[in-house]
Amino acid sequence: MNEAIAKLLSPRSVAVIGASADPQKTTGRPVAYLQKHGYSGRILPVNPKVERIGDLPCYPDVASLPEVPDVAVVLLGAERAHQTVRELSARGCAAAIVLASGYTETGEEGAHRQAQLMDAAGRMRILGPNTIGLVNLTDGIVLSPSGALEMDAFPVGGIGVVSQSGGILGSLLSRAAARGIGLSKLISTSNEVDLELADFIDHLADDPATQVIALYVEAVRHPARFRAACLKAARAGKPVVAFKVGRSEAGAQAAVSHTGALAGADRMYDALFKQVGVIRAERFADLLDVPAALCTGRRLRGNRVAILTSTGGAGTLVSDDLGVAGFETPPPDAATAQALRALQTGSEAVLDRNPIDVTLAGLRPDLLRGAITALLASPRYDALVIIVGSSSLAMPELLAGAIQACLPDSDKPVLAYVSPHAPEIGALLTQRGVPAFAAAESCTAALAGMLRASRFEVSGEPGAAAQAPAAVALEPLPGGPLDEAQAKAVFGRFGVPCAAERVVGTAAEAEAAALELGGPVVLKILSSRITHKSDVGGVAVGLLPQTIGARLDRMADEVEARAGERPHRFLVQQMVAGGTEFILGLHRDALGTAVLLGMGGVTAELFQDTALRLLPCEGGRLGALSRAEALSMAQELKTWPLLDGFRGRPCADVQALVDAVVAFSAMAAQLGDRVVEAEINPVFVLPRGQGVCAADGVLVLA
Amino acid sequence: MNEAIAKLLSPRSVAVIGASADPQKTTGRPVAYLQKHGYSGRILPVNPKVERIGDLPCYPDVASLPEVPDVAVVLLGAERAHQTVRELSARGCAAAIVLASGYTETGEEGAHRQAQLMDAAGRMRILGPNTIGLVNLTDGIVLSPSGALEMDAFPVGGIGVVSQSGGILGSLLSRAAARGIGLSKLISTSNEVDLELADFIDHLADDPATQVIALYVEAVRHPARFRAACLKAARAGKPVVAFKVGRSEAGAQAAVSHTGALAGADRMYDALFKQVGVIRAERFADLLDVPAALCTGRRLRGNRVAILTSTGGAGTLVSDDLGVAGFETPPPDAATAQALRALQTGSEAVLDRNPIDVTLAGLRPDLLRGAITALLASPRYDALVIIVGSSSLAMPELLAGAIQACLPDSDKPVLAYVSPHAPEIGALLTQRGVPAFAAAESCTAALAGMLRASRFEVSGEPGAAAQAPAAVALEPLPGGPLDEAQAKAVFGRFGVPCAAERVVGTAAEAEAAALELGGPVVLKILSSRITHKSDVGGVAVGLLPQTIGARLDRMADEVEARAGERPHRFLVQQMVAGGTEFILGLHRDALGTAVLLGMGGVTAELFQDTALRLLPCEGGRLGALSRAEALSMAQELKTWPLLDGFRGRPCADVQALVDAVVAFSAMAAQLGDRVVEAEINPVFVLPRGQGVCAADGVLVLA
Repeated sequence: MNEAIAKLLSPRSVAVIGASADPQKTTGRPVAYLQKHGYSGRILPVNPKVERIGDLPCYPDVASLPEVPDVAVVLLGAERAHQTVRELSARGCAAAIVLASGYTETGEEGAHRQAQLMDAAGRMRILGPNTIGLVNLTDGIVLSPSGALEMDAFPVGGIGVVSQSGGILGSLLSRAAARGIGLSKLISTSNEVDLELADFIDHLADDPATQVIALYVEAVRHPARFRAACLKAARAGKPVVAFKVGRSEAGAQAAVSHTGALAGADRMYDALFKQVGVIRAERFADLLDVPAALCTGRRLRGNRVAILTSTGGAGTLVSDDLGVAGFETPPPDAATAQALRALQTGSEAVLDRNPIDVTLAGLRPDLLRGAITALLASPRYDALVIIVGSSSLAMPELLAGAIQACLPDSDKPVLAYVSPHAPEIGALLTQRGVPAFAAAESCTAALAGMLRASRFEVSGEPGAAAQAPAAVALEPLPGGPLDEAQAKAVFGRFGVPCAAERVVGTAAEAEAAALELGGPVVLKILSSRITHKSDVGGVAVGLLPQTIGARLDRMADEVEARAGERPHRFLVQQMVAGGTEFILGLHRDALGTAVLLGMGGVTAELFQDTALRLLPCEGGRLGALSRAEALSMAQELKTWPLLDGFRGRPCADVQALVDAVVAFSAMAAQLGDRVVEAEINPVFVLPRGQGVCAADGVLVLA
Repeated sequence: MNEAIAKLLSPRSVAVIGASADPQKTTGRPVAYLQKHGYSGRILPVNPKVERIGDLPCYPDVASLPEVPDVAVVLLGAERAHQTVRELSARGCAAAIVLASGYTETGEEGAHRQAQLMDAAGRMRILGPNTIGLVNLTDGIVLSPSGALEMDAFPVGGIGVVSQSGGILGSLLSRAAARGIGLSKLISTSNEVDLELADFIDHLADDPATQVIALYVEAVRHPARFRAACLKAARAGKPVVAFKVGRSEAGAQAAVSHTGALAGADRMYDALFKQVGVIRAERFADLLDVPAALCTGRRLRGNRVAILTSTGGAGTLVSDDLGVAGFETPPPDAATAQALRALQTGSEAVLDRNPIDVTLAGLRPDLLRGAITALLASPRYDALVIIVGSSSLAMPELLAGAIQACLPDSDKPVLAYVSPHAPEIGALLTQRGVPAFAAAESCTAALAGMLRASRFEVSGEPGAAAQAPAAVALEPLPGGPLDEAQAKAVFGRFGVPCAAERVVGTAAEAEAAALELGGPVVLKILSSRITHKSDVGGVAVGLLPQTIGARLDRMADEVEARAGERPHRFLVQQMVAGGTEFILGLHRDALGTAVLLGMGGVTAELFQDTALRLLPCEGGRLGALSRAEALSMAQELKTWPLLDGFRGRPCADVQALVDAVVAFSAMAAQLGDRVVEAEINPVFVLPRGQGVCAADGVLVLA
């Protein structure tokens, strides 16, 4: 555990630089909130214009402080903050929280200020700038002026929050409190001049008070550190849930290559999160809902959900939403239905369906306990959702008590959906270990998150080197775009099977090549400068030896007319038939290097049916994808059934496709930064036993 | 306006049959709630065991009532309700609300009871059974035992609610009240033995107190009446918003034909709603959020939204979600940016971006008013979302007042997003005319709903006959499956162009037909019993006159071996090339008859890329689709770009496709119930000017 971060979160003493004596002012709040929320360490306000703040002596400057503070909260503006930071660092303060805005977020001058601040910090760690600070609810330490801290008390629990936005931290804090959702620590990292997301994920993975980590992400600035920290949390059994803003910017970021356009930066986050077991919150509300469910420690083993209700409509609502997300709500098995009937709920109760409607009789605590126990014991159900209707509102304690009494008998998840507006009963249930939601989508998101968490397994050992297949010996490769034959030769060296082909220069050579390859062939111009061959008339298919020569001469004329230069080299290539077209490409942005697999052809392109996986990267060295990852990419495609015998089609050679994806990724790993662009399009996946065959490709090297 | 329904919603006198003197009991609540919420008419409790309920005399039976009540609330169980209903009807009561459950929803015996109840009602109208009653907030009349009525007061407003679930009615009532959303009437129709959805939509369309109609739908039982009522509401300028439960049952309803499988009943609701201008609420929360925004009467003319914030993160959240839904958030134009800068918000404010971040200075009411006025005046924006951060919470009245003061200057929508937990300020803003939301998705849904509402136009005159093209004269058609040639002949008669073809019986005839048609041809067996021709080897493509004869004999052998019968009739058909494959089909279920248009081929099938439109139906007579509707179907497809010049493809003959869809729908309309199944698959859409061509088809007649 990093010592400075430990001190930052649990300081024995806090200097507040620029503290005001007026608790209404932003600069007056940190001291006021520390006292209000019962900080037991020493508070050291610094302000040359003030003598005392309440009972506390106020010091004129950092030099006058009677001790070296563990942490300083710096409330000065951006134009002065760096001086104080320098003084704090010189005195040996462990960490400073810099609240001022006006740094990189405002432009060039701000960026200069931020560099100045970093320089001033020296060995002292910085949280911020432009941060709202942090809140350690476990230990009752609040280092923040957030207006959300006006509330008197907060439920303390196992969810640690790291937010790249200060305003969002306050929003999560107050929303969680109103919902009865207990948090451990909240940290706003904002500009991340020093301490950043990964530092706190790493720290919370070790924090005994934290069971689940929730992230509000604007951008992952250090992907390798982020991956390592998330995998550490996963190994510690602590699920990480992230809401990432910026989904719609994806479209705006015009990517250069075709592959890039299909990928989009936001999809890189999807890949990153998936690969390190981070559960992506689809909606902002999920960022509390999913952790609230995970924090119960209960375990979801399957997708079958019982819904227990005393009111019809709301049960249907929940059941319907679960169904859309792929959960099942089967009727009770015979033994469970029998157990339910034995409770004598009355003639109107419908017990052989799901939702299980016990009608208003279900409000009797003994009956409710009996029904919950029977449903949790049933081998047909993996989880239980209890619907709270208007009629339950008169007896919140009885209801909560009856549900809570059943929890120890099973470790299956038990959630509640509260149909009327009744925030108090929701908070009560949540605090008693039954996360309660006011939206059907929240129940669904919570269960989906639990399923994801229970199914993710960290593969490999911590710190193990990235998968590094034996390096392939290569001739020295030229820089710039390779021609198609050169590109495929490189792909082939790494193990991607390519269509048989011959490079020719004349009609006679083409005829000989066609005879040698046998069957109808494809004729293409070979040029490293003309990438869109068919646009200039440079592709012809289905040619036979007797006609190819004349066709070559005609092609040379046409290309010359349309592209302004006469081609002198051509490719005669075996025609591939009977397979399914795929595209295999590379996408690289700030998050790393990723392999893209997608269905080929224009129709699939319209549906953006692609899968992305980031290459592993440790110590700056890229690794290849595993076979398991490559297979999961293919299976993730909506068009996967086309490979899997859909509508009587032959099963495709999926193993060969997997091999090709791994080989392509090994090439990307070995060539590293030399690859500017790499794409095989199309690669044909043939019927089982017949392999795959790359029919065209692009490789641009630096 | 229907007189009985008017009396039901605003009775001068109410009999409560089976009323209890204990207000805690469900049977005691209706009288208690009538009094609590200030009913000014006469309350007439009926119960032979009770003499008085509070101040009110209680009557032993219906016969003893001193006057004929306008409405009776029947609290008796299902086994006795029908007797009372008979007595009430005999006395001339206008309408009875029957709360008992135990009818069709429980099985066969219940269905018998429901028939009995209907018989007993005679000319008296029935709401229910199994209903929670109704609430008329406009006039302070509550005819319901819903626990939600324990609340003391409800905001009164312009949203009329009709729910097919009683529990959901209570949920909406209490949730709306907590949010400051004003309702006019709430009616729970439930089993709909008599009065149903359409009756109340029709009534609310005439109700001066109702501006927007919100529906909770489990099933539309009378589609024609529903369509008429919704179109009436649209003509009255009252948007209808519907949440329909049962989205995930779609998958479960195994439809017989391939077309049916693609369609799914829930998609029929999508079509129905779209065609009558009903805005479908995607989430249950939208059922209040969207009407709350529509109810302001403000008008959204485009998709450009300004976001005004004093806190960074939440603005990004809203902007991002709007972006995903296709809204734009452009930066302010020069004049607006200048106006904002003139407000002197301080150096940290970022005014040339959107979200427009006025920082904490934005909390000054004068500055806030100035910024709102400038943004609403800007021609670059169609709507404004104001972010309420933690810092605004100390001054709710000032904030609400400042925003409200700007509303009269513009009729553009103004919404609020409340970032921290602060339900009071949200309710305050909503009541002041600024609908406030706690979720970014709610802002998006509200604006999307407003856009839908402003763009829907009712076409045609009320009561105009369904579009009826001139009837096509047909030979008498046999029942059962037609063979392919017969089916295409029918399609052709209605104007769908079909591939040229000849029916042949021998190798020699086939050769002659191939010569006559010219070019390579397709050979298929012709049988009304074998529908999957290619599965038995009954299709061969690309045949030339010199080979077709031998191929015919081989095909006959193969089909005989695989299907057990030797084919004697074959189809020689022109080969269609160069087009895009579509599927044109018919889907029919309880909601009506719909035409389905989709991309053909297996890839598109995996993506379920289809569009549905219900045929118009008036007086039981089906009409054809209009050309505009047919075009909108094609444009709705994700694969529409394939017809529209995507990636250099030739533009397709969309007009010919539209003609074919209209022709196919005219066939379905004219043949009506005689059509069991009709599908053209594939129909090729050729490049512009070359038309469309049906290459295969199925028609099964009753």
